[in-house]
Amino acid sequence: MTKPSPDAGKSRREQLRERLIAVAERSIAEGGLSALRARDVATQANCALGAIYTAFADLDELVLCVNARTLARLEAALTSPARDGGELLRLARAYVNYARDEGPRWRALFEHRMPGKPLPEWYAQELDHLFSLLEAPLSRLLPGAPKEELHARARTLFSAVHGIVLIGVEEKLAPTSAKALDAALEEFIATVERGLR
Amino acid sequence: MTKPSPDAGKSRREQLRERLIAVAERSIAEGGLSALRARDVATQANCALGAIYTAFADLDELVLCVNARTLARLEAALTSPARDGGELLRLARAYVNYARDEGPRWRALFEHRMPGKPLPEWYAQELDHLFSLLEAPLSRLLPGAPKEELHARARTLFSAVHGIVLIGVEEKLAPTSAKALDAALEEFIATVERGLR
Repeated sequence: MTKPSPDAGKSRREQLRERLIAVAERSIAEGGLSALRARDVATQANCALGAIYTAFADLDELVLCVNARTLARLEAALTSPARDGGELLRLARAYVNYARDEGPRWRALFEHRMPGKPLPEWYAQELDHLFSLLEAPLSRLLPGAPKEELHARARTLFSAVHGIVLIGVEEKLAPTSAKALDAALEEFIATVERGLR
Repeated sequence: MTKPSPDAGKSRREQLRERLIAVAERSIAEGGLSALRARDVATQANCALGAIYTAFADLDELVLCVNARTLARLEAALTSPARDGGELLRLARAYVNYARDEGPRWRALFEHRMPGKPLPEWYAQELDHLFSLLEAPLSRLLPGAPKEELHARARTLFSAVHGIVLIGVEEKLAPTSAKALDAALEEFIATVERGLR
């Protein structure tokens, strides 16, 4: 019996990680974060329960890896070239459409909490990249604004649109029709654009 | 053994409901929605597990009753007379402070989902009442705007502020300091006010 080289070991671990991420991704996409069970993930990925914890520090890390894939899908949806209205309205519409199309995985981005644990640097960078999509249209409304201001405003506007979409799509706070939500977003973006100019 | 009159039965049921709401309220306030277990609630309220379902249609109804109390506390916080800055900024600040002060019960308002079930009318009315707090300041910015427009805009603005507070307080999307969040809210409200005028 030969001891596997560190490289071969790393590659097997990488393969296991990818298999586990794919299984967890499917589970979250279908049933949301609350449907994710470590035991089911292990069974479907054909490994022992404990093997998950050789591939990931904990289940949070596995969820973050799935959420990072969701962020990439979200970014792809936000950067698809369907242009009508201004750039900010286009981004807001793409965001609401993504939330409608991929509800469970979109919700998992926000439902996943890690009390007391800081967000890992690599994940924070993926998020920053997503926020930065709003900086270019904001810079056209605020010519000469310093980079830090654009960054802060992009984050705030992203959060505001998120709140409108969250409460509208989830229908948590009184029902909203899709048409009413689209109209509310359009009016909101127009108000913000007027306020920024 | 005399059969209890319907009135006495109703009153015992009311008492049980109130006891169960009080226990569930404490549990949510301390540990959030995810800590709520029907079995624990029954034990602490000194009743059988099945008795919960004689007092409430289901656990969702019990959670809505707790959330309605949270809405009342939130409204009290939003209407407390601490005035500096405009009315909208005052409301936004009161909202972020409530979220900071009573995190778990505030989160339960939004975490509780009832897929496929409509929101009961009585609960929708409590929410409407909360949104309506924004209608008066909005009407001063938009004199002559019809009631329906003010209602829709109040809802959208509430949702937007909620998104900013949610992402800021939860620190889900990159960390925010309390100071940065306060500054972001102030800037955001100023932008919306300029855009509405």
